[in-house]
Formats: sequence, structure tokens, C-alpha cells
Amino acid sequence: MKKLWSLSTTEHGGDKESIMRRGNVYQVANGYMGYRGTLDEFGPDEAVGITLAGVFDRVGDAWREPVNAPNGGFTRVALDGVELSALGDDVVRHRQTLHFADARFERTTVFRRGGKTLTLTSSRFLSAVTPNLGVIAVSVTCDQPGEIAIRTGIDGNIWDLNGPHLPELAHTREGDVLLTAGRTHESGKHVVVAELSSAEWAGGQAADSADNRNLRVLTVRAEAGQTYRFFKYFAVFTDNDRVDGALGEAAISAVRTAHALGYDECLAQHAAEWRRKWERCDVLIEGDDEAQHALRYSVLQLLMVAPVAGSANSIPARALSGQVYKGAIFWDTEMFMFPFFLHAYPEKAVELLRYRIRTLDGARRKAKTEGAGYRGAFYAWESQDTGDDACSYFNVGDPFTGRELRTHFRDKQVHISGDVAIAMWEYFKLTGDDSLLLEGGAEVILECARFYHSYLYYKKDKDRYEVLDVIGPDEYHERVNNNAFTNMVARETFLIAQAAVAHLRKKHPAALSALVKKLRLARELPAFAEAARKLYVPKPARKTGLIEQFDGYFALKDVPVAEVKAKMVHPHEYLGAGQGLAVPTQVIKQADVVMMLNLFKSRFSADIKRANWEYYEPRTEHGSSLSACAYALVATEFGNLDFAYKYFLKTAKIDLEAKYKVYAGTVFMGGSHPAANGGAWMTAIFGFAGVQADARRLAINPRLYRTWRRLQFRLSYRGDWFRVELTPDRANVVAEKTNRRARSPHRRPAQKSRAR
Amino acid sequence: MKKLWSLSTTEHGGDKESIMRRGNVYQVANGYMGYRGTLDEFGPDEAVGITLAGVFDRVGDAWREPVNAPNGGFTRVALDGVELSALGDDVVRHRQTLHFADARFERTTVFRRGGKTLTLTSSRFLSAVTPNLGVIAVSVTCDQPGEIAIRTGIDGNIWDLNGPHLPELAHTREGDVLLTAGRTHESGKHVVVAELSSAEWAGGQAADSADNRNLRVLTVRAEAGQTYRFFKYFAVFTDNDRVDGALGEAAISAVRTAHALGYDECLAQHAAEWRRKWERCDVLIEGDDEAQHALRYSVLQLLMVAPVAGSANSIPARALSGQVYKGAIFWDTEMFMFPFFLHAYPEKAVELLRYRIRTLDGARRKAKTEGAGYRGAFYAWESQDTGDDACSYFNVGDPFTGRELRTHFRDKQVHISGDVAIAMWEYFKLTGDDSLLLEGGAEVILECARFYHSYLYYKKDKDRYEVLDVIGPDEYHERVNNNAFTNMVARETFLIAQAAVAHLRKKHPAALSALVKKLRLARELPAFAEAARKLYVPKPARKTGLIEQFDGYFALKDVPVAEVKAKMVHPHEYLGAGQGLAVPTQVIKQADVVMMLNLFKSRFSADIKRANWEYYEPRTEHGSSLSACAYALVATEFGNLDFAYKYFLKTAKIDLEAKYKVYAGTVFMGGSHPAANGGAWMTAIFGFAGVQADARRLAINPRLYRTWRRLQFRLSYRGDWFRVELTPDRANVVAEKTNRRARSPHRRPAQKSRAR
Repeated sequence: MKKLWSLSTTEHGGDKESIMRRGNVYQVANGYMGYRGTLDEFGPDEAVGITLAGVFDRVGDAWREPVNAPNGGFTRVALDGVELSALGDDVVRHRQTLHFADARFERTTVFRRGGKTLTLTSSRFLSAVTPNLGVIAVSVTCDQPGEIAIRTGIDGNIWDLNGPHLPELAHTREGDVLLTAGRTHESGKHVVVAELSSAEWAGGQAADSADNRNLRVLTVRAEAGQTYRFFKYFAVFTDNDRVDGALGEAAISAVRTAHALGYDECLAQHAAEWRRKWERCDVLIEGDDEAQHALRYSVLQLLMVAPVAGSANSIPARALSGQVYKGAIFWDTEMFMFPFFLHAYPEKAVELLRYRIRTLDGARRKAKTEGAGYRGAFYAWESQDTGDDACSYFNVGDPFTGRELRTHFRDKQVHISGDVAIAMWEYFKLTGDDSLLLEGGAEVILECARFYHSYLYYKKDKDRYEVLDVIGPDEYHERVNNNAFTNMVARETFLIAQAAVAHLRKKHPAALSALVKKLRLARELPAFAEAARKLYVPKPARKTGLIEQFDGYFALKDVPVAEVKAKMVHPHEYLGAGQGLAVPTQVIKQADVVMMLNLFKSRFSADIKRANWEYYEPRTEHGSSLSACAYALVATEFGNLDFAYKYFLKTAKIDLEAKYKVYAGTVFMGGSHPAANGGAWMTAIFGFAGVQADARRLAINPRLYRTWRRLQFRLSYRGDWFRVELTPDRANVVAEKTNRRARSPHRRPAQKSRAR
Repeated sequence: MKKLWSLSTTEHGGDKESIMRRGNVYQVANGYMGYRGTLDEFGPDEAVGITLAGVFDRVGDAWREPVNAPNGGFTRVALDGVELSALGDDVVRHRQTLHFADARFERTTVFRRGGKTLTLTSSRFLSAVTPNLGVIAVSVTCDQPGEIAIRTGIDGNIWDLNGPHLPELAHTREGDVLLTAGRTHESGKHVVVAELSSAEWAGGQAADSADNRNLRVLTVRAEAGQTYRFFKYFAVFTDNDRVDGALGEAAISAVRTAHALGYDECLAQHAAEWRRKWERCDVLIEGDDEAQHALRYSVLQLLMVAPVAGSANSIPARALSGQVYKGAIFWDTEMFMFPFFLHAYPEKAVELLRYRIRTLDGARRKAKTEGAGYRGAFYAWESQDTGDDACSYFNVGDPFTGRELRTHFRDKQVHISGDVAIAMWEYFKLTGDDSLLLEGGAEVILECARFYHSYLYYKKDKDRYEVLDVIGPDEYHERVNNNAFTNMVARETFLIAQAAVAHLRKKHPAALSALVKKLRLARELPAFAEAARKLYVPKPARKTGLIEQFDGYFALKDVPVAEVKAKMVHPHEYLGAGQGLAVPTQVIKQADVVMMLNLFKSRFSADIKRANWEYYEPRTEHGSSLSACAYALVATEFGNLDFAYKYFLKTAKIDLEAKYKVYAGTVFMGGSHPAANGGAWMTAIFGFAGVQADARRLAINPRLYRTWRRLQFRLSYRGDWFRVELTPDRANVVAEKTNRRARSPHRRPAQKSRAR
């Protein structure tokens, strides 16, 4: 049982890439920050990172990326004057464990040096109740008497991809608290870290601030077999924290408060909060330990990186595992992570949507300045704190010339705005809560519709609107016309805009007229209906049922994926970007038409799903971590459960196995995969459990994988919670408790489907 | 004086590229075929080519290209049993000359071998009166007695870029005539060559058909100082020749007829025809021998490659100098060569236009099959015999990967159809002759307009039509929107279509209704007016006068041409094709906005011309031979005559100096430059002489270059001929004779402009 609630390894050294990958897999996070799964004694060379959510910085022309804080978790232990490290030759045994139950990282390393055996243990968590706080317990035991010196405190040597972001750190000390403060390079935002260490033994203590570190040295003349334990509390504060008074004082106060509570109490509060999280969000799979473990790991990841309440932050594509992908928020969040939160943790779904409301002005700026200049909101393809686009026009390196390749992710992947609008509307549909619409959600929806309205072209002889010159989810084919996914999303946005207006007109007429006036939308609004009606969306062909991914796709060269890959002459060469090997072929990067069939699953028959799935799947490289789960989800819709299961596992284990691509062209892109974590959850719940919800009902049409004896989980639907329990011959849905936050009166009981 | 009517060199050997370049520069042609400027004894290794106009073939997946005929001009001379060659070590002296007056190639080579000096002379022309015929006189003189053996006849070893096109040649003999016949690989088209050699001396004659050659051996026991002369007549016939009976018989008959006439008479007729050509077309420049010579060479080239009467052939981008660029006809013809013929040789202009009428169905096929499928006529970017597009979707090689790069020349360079329509209408405007319109020209125009009508998109909020996703003349920037040149050309096409309809309605109403019925155009026709009215054409900015080359051009990186070129790491790397170094910058390949200002010169003020010229010229790489003359022409419009002169000379001397680029990416593109020849003529006549004609008048606004004492030429205008004589202080225009071919009654006298 316990092995299903943890992940362990005995590996510790190895090459840089192994250390990097373990850093991703063993990270802990609390939404405010992520602490990579590195060891206490590690530094920048081992990719230690305490990545802050929502704090960004740019140095020169390099990519803007999230800021890593000085490492308040730093500790190095020396025995008889010699420092010990898991990377050294003295290691007898090592084991590190990520505990799912309380999102806690633990390591035990046994060193042997000069005939003495020293055991170092630490336990680390980022508090789930106090977002700024990290807590670590460290203990040292030597089998023989020895001089132990512990250098612990704050390491100002920060690992950055494109730093340094905090170029001049000030290391000070306030009584028993170490304080390291810096300002970001670009906007001078303050970042401070306070640290307080308290040893259980009375021993010497000295300051050490060499090498850009702010440390204390705890010494102990150790007795044989005696365990020496100390506790570290560190707190990170930035100008993003709404704090009265100085940040430094807030940080000092935070670590003193934690110290006053003590390690055990801090952990107890933290663990209790995690129990609540798991009570809601755990998915039980009986009969398949591999799936159980991988899915639980996926849910753990999502829960750890979910934004802090009130932050209006979102979740970057590599979450808080580092600075990869610029710490940016992509469509991944709305399309692959949001559904988990919407069904299992609606308060976090709210934060994700508030992030889009908060960054609406950035989306407006982007619309104005891209291409010919558009109206409304064109959300950033890579969104950071302001909503301006962090995506470069040259986003992939060319290994042949060392140059950067022009890609159109930023300027042509227009489906992003519709993805946001759809998520916004889903929240309202499934919770009945229209408060977010009033808070800015309706404005987001209307501005997204307006963007598409200004983007459309009318083709007179065909009497239809077309969406020209876009990139769909399959990024290998850039600048295509009438991408089925994009056109469908654009049309949906118009329909949602109309529905939102209808709802407001009925329930909040004053808010509606204020909004329409603010947006000067009165004249344009009626045109949305015409746009929705006349917007061309590629339809299934009568005979084959096939939907063409974009105009001309079927005329491309039809060659196997393997043939395209066999032509590669450089392992990192990118297959798209206009001249890549996949461009003239039907080989696609990831689910595109099939993603559309998944997103709009209620509009297409099983036959259409099967036909398109069978056509597109063999032509898909699955070069994105977003691809497998889309195919798995649609496979459950027409009964290919073996495939669905295979791709479900692939998705759920992506970070555990860490076999994903870490380079796109010359760009490093390693890190965690929260979208795949969300995809795994969706495949379990929407796929195998067959959950399908809309504003009218929550339907369950289970199709358990053959080895699964029980699938059990909780769902939130329109303010109520339901426990769903599925076995091969029974489906049981039980209403549990009422969520008092839901404000909508339109609650209906969930509809129990027949069991198969 | 004589040096202004010929071109000579004493170079003969050298590397392959030098021999290749001389082959281009010294070619002769007569519209039916071109004979590269190689020596009698040369073979395929020296790029001998008798390139046939309008005969194409394709082998396998290689490029389709014009067919080279077996070489009926082959002769090798041996002295005392040893063959002599200009490439060997026996050469004492060599001189070869291209005579402009009669388009004749002459060579004299003095060999010294075994103490004896042998002088070999030959004189070669392709008959201007009998298109199938080539005539060569060869003479040999030895200063001492010796055994001379002359192997002469037909060499079946053909130089091909992508051959062999005549894989199995049959060598036969009909009495005194050698006959070599083959069939093309792709369509089995017959190509036959007959040759008859007649020696002035009585000597031995034996057959020799080894090594794929069909030869006779003429032997002579030479006396010291005695000149031995013989004459070669060869004739090429193909299935394109409308011949009664067998092609072989026609060829045999042709050489026998020529032989009966004799060399002197053949030459006399040929020279007389050339006198008539020069009488019409020579441009006299007094005071500047360099310009005189280069321009005369340019006019010679145009006259030599002009299509045979009745052939409905056009002039390929590399004319008849070989198979480069697939022997294809580009926009070069209509935009850069056609004006010369229209003003100086209207009968040839007719052939060029008939070619587009003849290939209209190919343009219709292309429209149907490109992109989303269009209506009307989308002319081939690279047009061969059927009008189907020979341009590949992958038209440039990538030196880094050895792969072919996707280019959009074929599918997006939509201005080609308008270029054709404009030329068609210009002919009618300037000749008053509407017979071509009735022959199919009006159909061409209407189908081109229809193509644009089906290509346009309507932008509702701007109430305008746009031309999206095109390439303008600047091919470095692909897939741009609203290219000023293209939009202007498209609008012009609609206007021309309306004007053509109006003309037909008035003069040939029955023909109009038959045409409208045939094209089923009744309903669509009225829409052309709306399209013309609402078609967006980028306008000069109010303050700067600048016209943006396409949407977003001014937002591109503004870097000097040299900076872009300095980044090149491979000498053949292509700067465009989506990822090339010029793509993200404002660096352009060739005149684009400035080309538009040239094509529509009457619509823009001198200030606008100057402003745009000054902006775009420094940003132009002039990576195309079409660029310099466009800038030179516009420079004359606002008075930058020094620049105009410099670029005029550059254009006129392009083949003489042979310094042009011979590689685009990895593709070889050496050969002659008839478009530059036409551009040189235009710069002299439209630029420095300031000739500007429309349907209402012929205006002359001279601005002679400062060293020019006299500029004199003839022009045809609405059926009349005028002699124009310009000196620094006088402009004299004299009506000369009436061209009886002109059918239009709308003749007006030319308007004499004031002299400056």
C-alpha cells in the first residue's frame, strides 16, 4: 500500500542530465514556489532551483523567465573537516523518497569516511498552509565520535537558464535569522529570503558569508551513535506579496513564527491540509498498481503546483520545475490541466481563470500589435505576468546553422483565445457560478470573440467566413488555412459570447449594458451571430467520415512517421518551422483533428471519431506530451481501450520515466509535464469512467480497463460533491456534501448512467 | 566603328566555367534554335548546345527542360593524323568574334604542330530567313604540305542538364546527306537533323559513325599556303514543324536547297534580313562607345531569340542559351522583354502574346489545382509548351542539408496572371490592333481577372478586398499579404477586363456575347467593377510618401544588405525560402515597390518615386538580373541620372561581363539574360529618351545622360513608324512609313515633346 503513495530511488550521482531529471521528478511545490528535487548540499551546478510563481525577469536579449530565489534550504555537512556530498566517493547508501501523502521530500545518505559511518537524513516540505514557507528537518548520526560541522543557511549562487536575475544579493543577519535580499534585473522587484535554523543541541555557531552564501556554521563534537537534529525554516517574499511594511520583516516574522510553532506542528498543519486535498482529489484504481501509482503521482503534481488562493496565477507548461519554456502559461493549462481543477478542485480553477482576466490587457495589446492589427483579445501563446507574449518569433534553434528559426507559434496559433473562452464558459456551465463572468470573465469571452471577428475573412463566392493563416495544435504545419480545430474553436467562441450575453441580459442586465458600453461593442455584437452561422468548419467527408485537418492537408505527401524520422540527420533537428521534414507530409506533431473530437466530443458520433482516429493516429509523431492523452481519450469513445490504456500509462508516467524529448531544435525543454498529469487524470475520469458533464447533467458511461477492479473518485458538479465508485458490474454515484461557495441556484442532481 | 558592331576575344581554353560563359556570350540564335558560342571541334564536355525553342522533354523525376538537338555543326580537323583542338597545346593564336550586323559567329585558330602552322577558320550563322537552317563555312590553310583529314557531320553526343532526351539516335545517310533522328523520352516527339557538307576541292570522302557520331571524313593532301574551304548546311526539324510528309525528307530537302543556293547566297539573304532588323531596331548612342556597344549587344540578343513568325512561342528566361531554368518562360518576358518588341518589333510582340493565348488552358488547369482551387487563369510561374507549371514546389537547394527547400514561387506568385493581362492590353493600346483580343487575348484577360476574383478575400470591417498570401517580385519575402505590386496588378487586371469588355461591346458585340457565353461569365462580370473599386492597394504614407511593400514590411528588422550578407556561412545559401537570412529583415531581392512605380509610372509623382526609390534602393540586394534596370528606370524619372546610367550599364553588360550569380542555393542558373537585355533597352528608351506611350499619345521627355551626344532610334506606334533623334538641345521625331499590317483606324500622330 505504501509504495502506491511514494516514489523512491537509490540513485544520487550520475551525469548532469540524470541529476537534472531527478530534480524534476522529486520536486516539491506549494503553488507559491517549487523546490526542485535536489539534495541539501547541491548548488547551481546540480540545478538547484526554488522557482517562484508569477515573478519574472529578463536579462538583456535573453528569454524572460521566472526568477529562482536564493536557496534557503542549503546545508552541507563536514565530518572531521571534510565536506560530504552525495556526488562524492564516500557514499555507501542513498535513498530519496517523495511522499505523496504530504508532498514531502526525504533523503537518507550513508557516508563512510576515514573509517567512520555518517548518516545524513533530511525531510523537506513547502508548506501547504503558509505559501511563503519551506521547512526542513536535518539529522546527522555518526557511528563513532567525530567533529561534525554543518554549514547551513542561504545559498545566493542561483542556477538560472538566462540569468542572473538577482545580480547583487545583500546578505545580512537579524539576530538568529539570516536574510538575503536582491532585486530583479529588469524591474527591480524585491526578492528576500529569510532563514532560521535551530539545532536541538547546544553547540558552536559562527557566521560564514563567503562565496555569495549567507550561512551559519553549526558544530558538534558528536558522540558515537547519537543523532543530532536541527530544523530549518525559510521564507521567500517578493513584491508580489501584498505585505504591510518591509518584505524583510515579513520574511523574518514568517520564519520566527514557524520556528515558534516547531517542525512537528508545521508538518502537522501541512499534512492535514494535504489530507483534505487527497480526500477530494485522489483517484483510487484497484487491480492495477502501476496505473494507481502513476495517476496518483500525476494528481500530486497538479495539487502541488496549483496557484495560491487569491494569487490569480496560473500554471506554467513546466509548472514550477524550473525556468524551461520561460515559466510561461500555454494553452496547456486551459485544455489539459483546467478540467481536473474544474471537476476536482474548483477553487483552483477559479485562480486559473482569474489569471486570464488579470492578463486581459496584455491580450488586447497583443491583438493590436500582431499582424495587420486586430481588435479584442489575442492571448499570449506564452503568457507570463503581464499577459504580453513571451513567445519569440524565432522559437526553435536550427542545429545545422546554429541560427534561430522563424516559427509562427506566437502570431498564428490563434486558437489560444478560444481555448481561454471555452474554459471560462465551462466553469460557468459546470459550477453554475456566474460570479467570474461578472468579475471579468464575460469581458474575456467577448473580447476573444471580437478578436476572431476581426481576424476572419469573408469568401464571397462561398458565402462563408474563413480562418486563414494559422497554426493548429499540430505545430509542424504552420500558416495553414481553415484548420478544423481552430475554426471550431472560433465558432464556439462566438456561440459562447452569444450565450454569455443572453445569460447576463437575463440575470444581470445592468452589468451587461455597462460592459457593452465599456467595450463599445453595441454595434459589433449582432455580427457575432452571423459570424457563427457563416464560419466555415471542415466537415466529415460523406463517404469516409474524415475531417481534413486544414485546407490541402490530404494533398500532402502520405508517408509513414518512421520514414520522415529516418531522414533526420541531426538528432535535434526540428520537423516543422516551414522547412522541416514533416512539413510537406501528412506527419503531424500531435493530436489536432482528434483533439477537436475530444474537445467537442458530444458533437461527433463514435464512427466519426473512430474513422479520424484511425486515419490520424498512424500519422502522428506524438512529438508533444499533449498528444498521447488526446488519442487515449478519443480511443475510449469508440472502444479501443487497449490503446487508450497504453497511452494513458505513457501520459501518466511521462515524468516518472522521464523519457520525453528534452530538446526542440537546440532549445532545452526538460522539466515536469503538468499538462500530461492533467491528461492522465482526464483519461481516467472522462475516458475510462466516461464522465461527461454539461450545464444540464453529469453523465457517467463507464468503460473500465479490463484489469481494473474498482475506480473511485470524487467530483464537484454545480456546487455539489459526488463520490463515484465504479466496478466492472456496478456504477455507484453518491452525493456527498454541499459546497457552500457555489452561488448558482441552478443545481441539478447528477444523472446516474446505466452500468455496463 | 566596327568594334561597336562586334564582340571578340582571344580566350579559348580555361576551366569549364570559362568555356561555359563564352558559350553563353558568343551564342547565335534565330528564334527557332540557339547555337551556343562553342567551337566546331567541341563536344558535350564543353557544353555545346543547339537548344530548340518550344520542344521540351522530361526524364524521370528530373526537371523538364528544352531539348538540345544533335550537333550538325560538328567539325574536327586533323593534321598529319593528329586532331587539333582549341583546348589542346598546339594553339598559337585564337580569335573568335560575334558579328552583330548579321548575328554571325566567326573563329580563327592558328595551330602549330610538327613544325607546320595550320589556320582554321569558320563562320557560322543560323538563318534568319529559314528558321530550321544553320550554315557554316570552314577553311583550312597549312603553311607546309600536309595530310589534312576533316571529320565533319552530326555529333549525337548531346550535352544535357537533365537528359538524355533523345536516348536512341539513328544515324543514317541519304546520298550526300547525313541524317540523325531521335525521339524524345517523354512524348516520343521526333527530332531529326540533316547535314550536307560540300568541299570546294575534290578529295576522298568516307563515312564514320563511331561514338554516336554521324560523320564524313574529308581528306586533302594540302599544298603549302593553299586554303581549303568547305560548307556545312544543317537543318533541324521536329514534330512542332508543320511539315507535309516525313520530317527527315523535309530536313534533307532543306539542306539540299541551301546547298543549291550556296553559302554566299544563304549568307546574303540572312544578312539582308538582319539589315532590316537593325534598320528598325538599332539604337544609336553617340558619345559613349561603351553604352553603344553594350546596348547593341543587348538588342542583338533580343532580335536573335525572338520567336519565329507563326510559332506562338515565347522567350525563356535564359532564352536559347541552354536548358537553365528549364527553358521556361517567366514574367520576365512580359515585363522586361515585351516592351522592346511592342515598340520596335510588334510582329514579335504578337508571338509572345499568342504564346499566352495558346497556353491558356494550362493556366486554367493550374488555377483549378493550386491551393483551395481557383477559377480563371493562373499562369505558370515557369511555363513550357503546355502552360502547365514547370516550377517545383521545392525550387531551391539547401547547401546545409542538401535538401530541397519549399518555395512558393509556383503557388503564390500570383502577379504573373496580371502581368500577362497587362501586356495583352498594352499591345492593343499601343498598336490599336484588336485582332489579338479577338483571337483569344480578351479571353486571356477575362480569365486572369476571374482568377483574381476567385483569389480575393473580403475584409468586412475595412470594407475592402485583399490579396492574401502571395509573393511579390521580391522573392525573399514569401507568403505576404497585400503586396503593393501584386494588389496594383490585380486591380489593373479588373480595370483592363472592364475596358476590354467595353471595347468589344462597342466594336465586336457578337464576339463579346459568344465569349461571355463560352466562359459562363455573365453573372460574374459585373463583380469585376466592385472588385476593382474595393481592392485595397497600399498607398503612399501622407508624410513620407512611402508605400509599404506588404503588410508588416516596415516592422521588419532594418539592417543593411551588407550585414545580412556578412552572416552568410555558405556562398550559395539562399536568403529567402522562409528561413533565409533576409526573411526577417527589410532586405529585398529585387525591385518590388519600385517595380510597381515603374510599371505604373504615370500614376505616381516624381516625389513619390524619389521617396520610395531612396528608401528601397539601399535595402535591395539586386540578387536578380531584373532589379537594376527597374531602379535605373525610376531614377531617370526624378533625375538621378548618374545612378540610372550606372545601373543601365550594369544591366546592358550583364552577359558581356558575365559576373552574375550562377547559383541560387545549389541550383545552377548560368546562361544569357534576355530580360536584362530588354531592361537595358527600356532604360535607354523609356529612361534616358523619356518615351512614354499610351492609347492617346506617344510622349517623349528626353533626359540624355551627360556624355551622350546623340540618341537615335525608331519606334512603332499605332501602326506608324517614327524616327526619334535626340541631342542635348534638340528632340526630333519624324514619321517614317506606314506599317500596312496595323488594322486599327485609330492612329494619331505622335506628340512631340518640347526639347530641354
